[in-house]
Amino acid sequence: MTVSDDTAFEIPQVYSRHIFACFTQRPPGHPRGSCGALGAQPLWDRLSKKIEAKGLTEVGFTAAGCLGFCSAGPLMVVYPEGVWYRPQTPEDIDEIFESHLVGGKLVERLVMVLTRG
Amino acid sequence: MTVSDDTAFEIPQVYSRHIFACFTQRPPGHPRGSCGALGAQPLWDRLSKKIEAKGLTEVGFTAAGCLGFCSAGPLMVVYPEGVWYRPQTPEDIDEIFESHLVGGKLVERLVMVLTRG
Repeated sequence: MTVSDDTAFEIPQVYSRHIFACFTQRPPGHPRGSCGALGAQPLWDRLSKKIEAKGLTEVGFTAAGCLGFCSAGPLMVVYPEGVWYRPQTPEDIDEIFESHLVGGKLVERLVMVLTRG
Repeated sequence: MTVSDDTAFEIPQVYSRHIFACFTQRPPGHPRGSCGALGAQPLWDRLSKKIEAKGLTEVGFTAAGCLGFCSAGPLMVVYPEGVWYRPQTPEDIDEIFESHLVGGKLVERLVMVLTRG
């Protein structure tokens, strides 16, 4: 990955990877839906607990507000790669954890390629 | 910036830059403090409105929960660079907006170099 402007400096990174997971919960029947309504919370709880249990202190996990693309949830994004995932089961979470966060390999089947507007 | 493992692929990016700003608000006197207690919210409101007014659709702005480093707030992080900023005034926000988000140049005086405990 390259950043092509003057911010492409070497700055010490707080995390090797930083996950932002959408915790937005809209009420049932809300027209936009939400990651929460699509079952996000137990998935994020599982992921954050696995990160902590494994002692992956170089991986950050942060609760996020709405990331957009609400009908495509549950959504999480991993930076610096900018990979968006849509896990739907505990097994999906386990695969993202083992493959991407521990092993550094993308889980292609769970990647969401999103486009704005 | 380089990512040295198998996730270093070319994936279409939703945003050229994605800002996560801490909206945590703990009550006055709370021992951890919070970005909210340090005056974050009007700063983030200003930044998100400027992004929208300028039509910078390639810049994402997402409200975040606690990013850690609570005494160092108000904190925001810009990915993919992984630059953490601590703006304290409306002028700081305007400089981050014009220099980094519009112009692609880091605002060194506002960068926080953080290290994990």
